[in-house]
Amino acid sequence: MIHGGAGELDTVSNPQDAAPYLRSIRKILECGQALLKRSGRALDAVETCASLLEDDPLFNAGRGSVLNEHGTVSMDAAIMDGRTLDAGAVAGINRIAHPIKLARLVLEESDHVMLIGDGALRFARKHRIRMVPETYHVTKQRFEEYKKMQLQRQRKVDVLSKHKHGTIGAVAMDRKGNLAAATSTGGMVYKKEGRVGDSPIPGAGVYADNHICAVSTTGYGEMFMRTVLAKHIADLIYFRKMDAESAARSGIAYLRRRVKGRGGVIIIDKKGRCAACFNTRTMVHGWIARNGEIHCAYL
Amino acid sequence: MIHGGAGELDTVSNPQDAAPYLRSIRKILECGQALLKRSGRALDAVETCASLLEDDPLFNAGRGSVLNEHGTVSMDAAIMDGRTLDAGAVAGINRIAHPIKLARLVLEESDHVMLIGDGALRFARKHRIRMVPETYHVTKQRFEEYKKMQLQRQRKVDVLSKHKHGTIGAVAMDRKGNLAAATSTGGMVYKKEGRVGDSPIPGAGVYADNHICAVSTTGYGEMFMRTVLAKHIADLIYFRKMDAESAARSGIAYLRRRVKGRGGVIIIDKKGRCAACFNTRTMVHGWIARNGEIHCAYL
Repeated sequence: MIHGGAGELDTVSNPQDAAPYLRSIRKILECGQALLKRSGRALDAVETCASLLEDDPLFNAGRGSVLNEHGTVSMDAAIMDGRTLDAGAVAGINRIAHPIKLARLVLEESDHVMLIGDGALRFARKHRIRMVPETYHVTKQRFEEYKKMQLQRQRKVDVLSKHKHGTIGAVAMDRKGNLAAATSTGGMVYKKEGRVGDSPIPGAGVYADNHICAVSTTGYGEMFMRTVLAKHIADLIYFRKMDAESAARSGIAYLRRRVKGRGGVIIIDKKGRCAACFNTRTMVHGWIARNGEIHCAYL
Repeated sequence: MIHGGAGELDTVSNPQDAAPYLRSIRKILECGQALLKRSGRALDAVETCASLLEDDPLFNAGRGSVLNEHGTVSMDAAIMDGRTLDAGAVAGINRIAHPIKLARLVLEESDHVMLIGDGALRFARKHRIRMVPETYHVTKQRFEEYKKMQLQRQRKVDVLSKHKHGTIGAVAMDRKGNLAAATSTGGMVYKKEGRVGDSPIPGAGVYADNHICAVSTTGYGEMFMRTVLAKHIADLIYFRKMDAESAARSGIAYLRRRVKGRGGVIIIDKKGRCAACFNTRTMVHGWIARNGEIHCAYL
């Protein structure tokens, strides 16, 4: 199951405008499906799907990331392996084509869970991860969004409450029943330099435990951090014996009730049941049903 | 209730060597007690106690922080308000005398939960937080530890498994029943540049919710991040109806069972019951009993 962000299409009034997003989601799910059919690991599936979402400039992660207050890109990503609770995360990075692949490398090749900024880039160079020019991530659309936001701020419009909440994420279960989750983002438009959201944080924006479920979240990240929402949802399933569907709904209700949070989640529980829930108007997402059929939706 | 790190005194064989740590813990608890008696807020109490622990070079936070692979200081801290679930965190910072005060400022004065590196320092300067020279934090003892570690690494001794696990933290309940928690650290000796541990992460190293409890953790941070331990403990209390004592024990058992983690926690639950648990040989800590008596311990 994958998502391309809650709120991303909130302003879409013509359903045709959503078509390219749904086409991309479907194509990426097909890649994930093929990988899992070849007995690929859940961890590889979420990494691959997340990196394809990072490639697509439609989504706010990797190429197509939004710009911060200085007009530069600063990305966060995390990946978690439900088999071992191993996690890898990077925050405040740029010049990396696929932040999720760097997060995977942190998981595999370091003693640490999270590396940030220059330290993360040094680690990337040491492991011969290809660096891209800073311009690689910046698309025309994001630059225009940034300029618009800059203008609004000069007019003292409260922009933070109006920004789009994009993130991408993937959760998967493989043939052996292993679960994994991945989340990656460019963060919030015009965010402060150095701001880190929930995406790179195990328990907030990403979580996977073979005994329970895999979760990826999207939305106003600060609210997911304060409610530790991905872990909260896992605990609803574990302690309250909820299924994925009820846990997703309870989780989003909790987010709303406790911190007036807005956003969405995707979940696969240990029985392979998929669920999505969001309290934004839209969340681009898709899943592979038990019979192998691919479904995509944004409402 | 406050702590000065799990494992910090593991190598102490003569109880007299622990005396200065316990004296400091007692003195700081007296300050916290005085503040709470004057109807101070829990949030102020944990900030004050944590900043006093940061001042004391005995502890691995603020002045006395350990050095990373480049021989420089890089500190993380977070504070959380159980009344609102508001949280503030900073990571990968130096030149700030009291990281916990900067975390509090992020909580109060920004739209974000976490600021890292240069962005956090820019935010500090904007709010006229006093900067200190880089040498302020470095003590002779930490420099010698660093040099020793450097030597061991040149001899290819596996040092990461032998490092000391220092952190400081505080949890408090005020007269109105509000809970708050704070955690601050210099991280691991010889850690990679850019490594961020559990201390600045709500749900991992710090957590507070008026309906449940306040938690601060210390130990091998990566393991607390992977298990999202502070939130896990809160959920044991909430969903399993445990008291602070059982939740602390179950939490540390879970840490051990799932990821072979080592460290400790301090907790105050919503009924004001204090508990501490650790699976290192020692954890310097102290608490104020219901009758106002101060207790300190490290075994």
